[in-house]
Amino acid sequence: MAKPLALTSGEPAGIGPDIALEAWRRRGELDLPPFYLLGDRAFFAERAKILGLTVELADASPEEAGATFASALPVVATGETATAQPGQPDDSSANAALASIRQAVDHVRQGRAGAVVTNPIAKSVLYRAGFRHPGHTEFLAELAADGGKLPQPVMMLWSPALAVVPVTIHLSLREALAQLSTELIVATARIAVADLKAHFGLGSPRLALSGLNPHAGEDGSLGREDIDVVAPAVDILRQEGIDARGPLPADTMFHAAARKSYDCAICMYHDQALIPIKTIAFEDAVNVTLGLPFIRTSPDHGTAFDIAGTGKANPSSLAAALRLAARMAATKPQ
Amino acid sequence: MAKPLALTSGEPAGIGPDIALEAWRRRGELDLPPFYLLGDRAFFAERAKILGLTVELADASPEEAGATFASALPVVATGETATAQPGQPDDSSANAALASIRQAVDHVRQGRAGAVVTNPIAKSVLYRAGFRHPGHTEFLAELAADGGKLPQPVMMLWSPALAVVPVTIHLSLREALAQLSTELIVATARIAVADLKAHFGLGSPRLALSGLNPHAGEDGSLGREDIDVVAPAVDILRQEGIDARGPLPADTMFHAAARKSYDCAICMYHDQALIPIKTIAFEDAVNVTLGLPFIRTSPDHGTAFDIAGTGKANPSSLAAALRLAARMAATKPQ
Repeated sequence: MAKPLALTSGEPAGIGPDIALEAWRRRGELDLPPFYLLGDRAFFAERAKILGLTVELADASPEEAGATFASALPVVATGETATAQPGQPDDSSANAALASIRQAVDHVRQGRAGAVVTNPIAKSVLYRAGFRHPGHTEFLAELAADGGKLPQPVMMLWSPALAVVPVTIHLSLREALAQLSTELIVATARIAVADLKAHFGLGSPRLALSGLNPHAGEDGSLGREDIDVVAPAVDILRQEGIDARGPLPADTMFHAAARKSYDCAICMYHDQALIPIKTIAFEDAVNVTLGLPFIRTSPDHGTAFDIAGTGKANPSSLAAALRLAARMAATKPQ
Repeated sequence: MAKPLALTSGEPAGIGPDIALEAWRRRGELDLPPFYLLGDRAFFAERAKILGLTVELADASPEEAGATFASALPVVATGETATAQPGQPDDSSANAALASIRQAVDHVRQGRAGAVVTNPIAKSVLYRAGFRHPGHTEFLAELAADGGKLPQPVMMLWSPALAVVPVTIHLSLREALAQLSTELIVATARIAVADLKAHFGLGSPRLALSGLNPHAGEDGSLGREDIDVVAPAVDILRQEGIDARGPLPADTMFHAAARKSYDCAICMYHDQALIPIKTIAFEDAVNVTLGLPFIRTSPDHGTAFDIAGTGKANPSSLAAALRLAARMAATKPQ
């Protein structure tokens, strides 16, 4: 039997608990693999009550979670209580969210869980409590480093129709232009290839690298970067035996026929990667962190404080994240 | 009876003649409005022969074209002969392409044609022949000016699912950042609104303006331009009574549900506008030039020299351009 997935609570005041409860309730319809929720069972029971949902919750260990899952949502206690009302993070929020992440990582590294699936956190809440990482992913990288070498996490957005990796991410466009380099493109693509081999069953992943400028710079008449920065990265990757193509005009590489020619698009900046995938797969795009020594996926949305506790939160993206994590965990490395 | 559409030949060595012939042949299936082709009938007959197509061609005036269209493709002679082989522009190419454009504009301005639909030209061929305009659109603007004030042409890509207008177009991304200004955004949006009222039957067109930076700058933490440049443009437009919203995060504004909330997306740079529309409507996106004193559409592809004369060229985009031009010509200004 496959190991269960460790699902973090995320920010307790956000929609994480809502979609976790709703996902378990609709586990059959959504075709979900066994997972357990890390946190405070009484808190989750209270949220179910607020939502008017009948959800059986059962204290469990990771080892018991698989058997429990069919009849109750297994909750692995973190020891931290949560007390926030929906939409209103309180002093208990940061510790509850962080304990949930830490223990999920512990479980997967100890071989007790198959993968980590994280619900959204609120960075501002964590910052006020002294959290010093830029975000969720960097925190996971530090937990993964465990005192040793810090892994370089790489963000992939995955959907059945398209997978994209932005080389630069949460930077202004101006800053993204400044930071883009051949080295960064190559390092990012290498990590993507390694994880596509390890967890997606691809023996020789096909990468399509986008050009930075319109029409990939049109032979330099619309900017030199595609010649000076992107093309050399493609050359280096190909010399390493990686099936990489590009720089390709970004506007014509994402339609249905074009997508069939590659497994993952490596894009130069945030919107170039996220516009196409969110245009065609808004509900079921999954955020996957590559480059970590364990599998981590997460739904591709935030805490949505405005709808927490209302029943309006949609569990589709979480469900897709759970399904993908299970699939990745079950895939034999190539 | 609606006036016929004036269709230019485009570069004779390109796929323009191929798709014009094929479109006429499939006029019923493609639901095409009456159009006539401007150029050299003997040249088009020869191309039909190369393609192995049986296409009846008839010399006609614009006035005769509507009646002729059902039984033959009407050709209005430009007086310029063309001699190029498929894929190989020759000395006759530039004059043939330019005469076709000039006369199409004359006809529409004289009220003899309902709209101008242009096939792709090869800028490099025209440059060698002394053409001094940056492109097709600028040439049309000069013809439209007719010695008077030069109109500011604005490019829109239109499909049934999405319409987009890039504020900056064929510039490197770095140069697009440098040229983007509140004034340029406002001027572009005003022209879009005027044409959406005049030719698309929209009394109060709804505009969605994208942010420049990821997440529309996240309150300035990912770049100041959305606060300093884009938001003021939205304010000015709203003060003028225009239904404008933004700056919106570009990655979440193009999925099916989001698209329903606006008639046209005003985007800050080429790929931000063209990635979403070419991702979802690659075959049937139409290029529309707004801001001219007549209607002009064109298929959204180039001369494709490599497949000219082979029968591989797809007339879908031209067909969409013809249908849209006829619809625009038939729409009562709001």
